[in-house]
Amino acid sequence: MRLIEKGVLIVISGPSGVGKGTVRAAIFEQENHNLEYSISMTTRNPRQGEVDGEDYFFTSKEDFLERIDQGQLLEWAEFVGNYYGTPLDYVQKKLDEGKDVVLEIEVQGALQVKNVMPDACFIFIAPPSMPELRKRILGRGTEEIEVVNKRMAKAEAEIGLAHEYNYIVINDTVDNAKERIMHIIEAEHSRSARVLENYNKNIAEL
Amino acid sequence: MRLIEKGVLIVISGPSGVGKGTVRAAIFEQENHNLEYSISMTTRNPRQGEVDGEDYFFTSKEDFLERIDQGQLLEWAEFVGNYYGTPLDYVQKKLDEGKDVVLEIEVQGALQVKNVMPDACFIFIAPPSMPELRKRILGRGTEEIEVVNKRMAKAEAEIGLAHEYNYIVINDTVDNAKERIMHIIEAEHSRSARVLENYNKNIAEL
Repeated sequence: MRLIEKGVLIVISGPSGVGKGTVRAAIFEQENHNLEYSISMTTRNPRQGEVDGEDYFFTSKEDFLERIDQGQLLEWAEFVGNYYGTPLDYVQKKLDEGKDVVLEIEVQGALQVKNVMPDACFIFIAPPSMPELRKRILGRGTEEIEVVNKRMAKAEAEIGLAHEYNYIVINDTVDNAKERIMHIIEAEHSRSARVLENYNKNIAEL
Repeated sequence: MRLIEKGVLIVISGPSGVGKGTVRAAIFEQENHNLEYSISMTTRNPRQGEVDGEDYFFTSKEDFLERIDQGQLLEWAEFVGNYYGTPLDYVQKKLDEGKDVVLEIEVQGALQVKNVMPDACFIFIAPPSMPELRKRILGRGTEEIEVVNKRMAKAEAEIGLAHEYNYIVINDTVDNAKERIMHIIEAEHSRSARVLENYNKNIAEL
């Protein structure tokens, strides 16, 4: 029995190249999980086969800017003329339904989320070592050495922000990282601040 | 791979009658755990069959009082003329060896530990409801109603201190409580404060 019914917002983040997308995919490939992947909103046009409300919530630039103004986005960024962000109402609705919502985003986005929802669970995916991160970035191929060096420098700066997160998960293997995250999600449901939210309602009155 | 090698101190506590001893026993009955049970120190005489360094560390009152003076006890209490406590050096040694050390103690003792080692992991075992706690206390039999009422009042006061703990684990069934605690112990190894302790040594230098 869990006393709390509200879901937990799980923010998975970390430097580009660390493999956070692969880890997130592995988490959702599990059977019987109670997790909901947070769908992003974007102003770019749908590509062939993309479905609104599945791949993205597609919207106009006008609507997106209005949402920014009204604080209706958990985080957002502009990228080559298009806007991308996480709609707050969708996340809130899923949390209220008791789903744990998983957000996989860049470090800057995660820090934005922390400002809006400091009680979310922030997980930093870290490389086992810097040479290993370089190897992974190189493994994606076709990157020029200057681009690789730039990404390594950015990763180092981002690792310097890891203390802003509640957890640091070393992605040595995808399976290990996935297991660690699943333990964290379960443990978060026992965090006293979360349990006490419903404590008065459930235990103390009895 | 875990970056940290140091163990985590796990303090399991909660009102008398909630079943924390049973939960702790279930945890140690598991195979392949990496947990060490913290052995208490006492000034009372060994009973038939009790082994020094296994059941208790037996010591003199003089030595015990000296340890109190020197801050060599994580927590201690006097009970019908005898002293009971947790020796700091033993716990520290096991943590340094990379063992997670489990301490099962009363609420007042847990709060003493928090003063000395605020970074330990504090788990409050809570009853699913107050009537259920009363049933469990009554289930032990032979208690007079006044004693039961006194224990219930004490339990209520202790539940009011649950916010001092990092986690609240509802002991609805022993298996559920055990599973929640195992998730918590695993997750604690990914807490950023713990990982960052070794971060500079391991990652950043590479």
